[in-house]
Amino acid sequence: STSSDLIRATLFPGDGIGPEIAESVKQVFNAAEVPIEWEEHFVGTEVDPRTQSYLTWESLESVRRNKVGLKGPMATPIGKGHRSLNLTLRKELNLYANVRPCYSLPGYKTRYDDVNLVTIRENTEGEYSGLEHQVVRGVVESLKIITRQASLRVAEYAFYYAKTHGRERVSAVHKANIMQKTDGLFLKCCREVAEKYPEIKYEEVVIDNCCMMLVKNPTLFDVLVMPNLYGDIISDLCAGLIGGLGLTPSLNIGEGGIALAEAVHGSAPDIAGKNLANPTALLLSAVSMLHHLDLNEKADKIQDAVLKTIAEGKYRTGDLGGQSTTSEFTKAIIDHL
Amino acid sequence: STSSDLIRATLFPGDGIGPEIAESVKQVFNAAEVPIEWEEHFVGTEVDPRTQSYLTWESLESVRRNKVGLKGPMATPIGKGHRSLNLTLRKELNLYANVRPCYSLPGYKTRYDDVNLVTIRENTEGEYSGLEHQVVRGVVESLKIITRQASLRVAEYAFYYAKTHGRERVSAVHKANIMQKTDGLFLKCCREVAEKYPEIKYEEVVIDNCCMMLVKNPTLFDVLVMPNLYGDIISDLCAGLIGGLGLTPSLNIGEGGIALAEAVHGSAPDIAGKNLANPTALLLSAVSMLHHLDLNEKADKIQDAVLKTIAEGKYRTGDLGGQSTTSEFTKAIIDHL
Ligand SMILES: CC(C)[C@H](C(=O)O)[C@@H](O)C(=O)O
Ligand SMILES: CC(C)[C@H](C(=O)O)[C@@H](O)C(=O)O
Repeated sequence: STSSDLIRATLFPGDGIGPEIAESVKQVFNAAEVPIEWEEHFVGTEVDPRTQSYLTWESLESVRRNKVGLKGPMATPIGKGHRSLNLTLRKELNLYANVRPCYSLPGYKTRYDDVNLVTIRENTEGEYSGLEHQVVRGVVESLKIITRQASLRVAEYAFYYAKTHGRERVSAVHKANIMQKTDGLFLKCCREVAEKYPEIKYEEVVIDNCCMMLVKNPTLFDVLVMPNLYGDIISDLCAGLIGGLGLTPSLNIGEGGIALAEAVHGSAPDIAGKNLANPTALLLSAVSMLHHLDLNEKADKIQDAVLKTIAEGKYRTGDLGGQSTTSEFTKAIIDHL
Repeated sequence: STSSDLIRATLFPGDGIGPEIAESVKQVFNAAEVPIEWEEHFVGTEVDPRTQSYLTWESLESVRRNKVGLKGPMATPIGKGHRSLNLTLRKELNLYANVRPCYSLPGYKTRYDDVNLVTIRENTEGEYSGLEHQVVRGVVESLKIITRQASLRVAEYAFYYAKTHGRERVSAVHKANIMQKTDGLFLKCCREVAEKYPEIKYEEVVIDNCCMMLVKNPTLFDVLVMPNLYGDIISDLCAGLIGGLGLTPSLNIGEGGIALAEAVHGSAPDIAGKNLANPTALLLSAVSMLHHLDLNEKADKIQDAVLKTIAEGKYRTGDLGGQSTTSEFTKAIIDHL
């Protein structure tokens, strides 16, 4: 096939273990003959004034142009005067929905079986407004902003996702009994969208109760949609149910059809460069990206191979209690393709 | 003993199943010869303008005078123009710390063993300021307020609690990577207090990570202290680990040495009046109240009897998978005293 048949996608290998797990994705994609051509971009070594962060403007332009990308972990360098890399990406690319499917991996035992839910997080506003100030000495405030536009947008995405992924129910998570105006507006928007999807059940659940139910019986949930901070909390809680951030895919949806898949775990500098990292989260995120591109056959093939390798248990990385290197685990996946 | 030997305590039986479970506490206290005389107050039938809620001013005065009380579930009546009963209590009595011990009940199986932690929640400010407004149509904001005074006060209580309860570690839960000013101030106050308690270990944990760790391995935690909303979320999550709100005690600490113990579960109107309710949460809350009064022997005796009854499993209420009535369960506890 010539390069014109290929879909160009931006790749941010990221920091720490990022390059190793990105290499694993590249090898698996090659072996599976995925028609993708990577355009690699690296985290810069100095702050780009146009992004106010270590991410260059060119790298963001690459995602805007390709409309699709994959990102490894990025450690925000310590120091003042620049923005977190993750927040820069969300802001500059208007990544308004963070989608995290969370399902029990066959053969990988945790306290929970049969978890199969998806969290959809509003990713641009709420408690992440960055608006804070000191009122008087010893009294500070942060603004939580909820807009009709962003709430409708993420609610639309949640219902669209539910419908196109054979999901039956959307639960909006909130604390509108306390934040009647902000979370109240969020719920109002969810209800409006719900009316357009009579085939999808809609329910509302208060965040404290939601967390209790999730640890008691996570199979009660299907698709969860929520404001930014609740999504941050609940998506990590859910990851914990099935084994942690090393196993959960994440996909960010942006304005104009942009999709940026990402591993949400850390850059694990302690094991970086040692061929010990687990590429599962990045691989499964890459699978989400393929689904987004409607390359469903390739996506399923790769997902099956990853899950089978983990289920067999012969080749597992250290974090999953095994002794395999990243390369051995990757090779096992390729053998299962 | 004459009435002058008795400690007067306010009792709010509350709504729904409240009166039945309060009756259970009264019977167990009688049988254990706890030197307490109850002063009962009921939720009113109309709004008291002095409290702006269905709680009368006299009932609040009773807690202020006695400095100690026990409260069943209260369902805030639906309608506008009055405050939630729980929020009225917190506000009027300045209940600044909500303390919830959370431990696995011997013999009552959940997915988790050996949970033994305490959540301490700032209970007066943060996201519960009630300050919200519409900026323009479709844009609303809520104010999260953090003060040095309230943060120091709850941090002081957390370390004092840890020290006086043989606990080794206090973890402050926050999202200061995003809310640098508000959660940053909260952390600053915790650090200041931590310095005065060199014998207690101090650590900080980001809320999303904290929730993930709690579901993966809750035994990693000891005492957790946090701003209002995080406390709301995490205390319910923790209750879920050991079986739910029907099993977890709660004690509110107020200015001037006030302590108000409470069952934090709902009023369960569906089973109210049917002798089916589980009084465990209210009983264990009453035990917390006794500890607060330094009636430790009585407290331990009652707690042992409750835990033994549940562990034996012969008499359990429906919510715990048994078939006993509230009275049978209560009688079994009394027999174990
Ligand atoms: C690193 C941090 C700013 C970020 C967030 O809070 O959104 C992270 O927790 C996440 O979920 O991607
Ligand atoms: C009922 C509600 C207002 C309350 C809260 O949010 O504080 C409850 O969840 C609690 O934890 O006591």
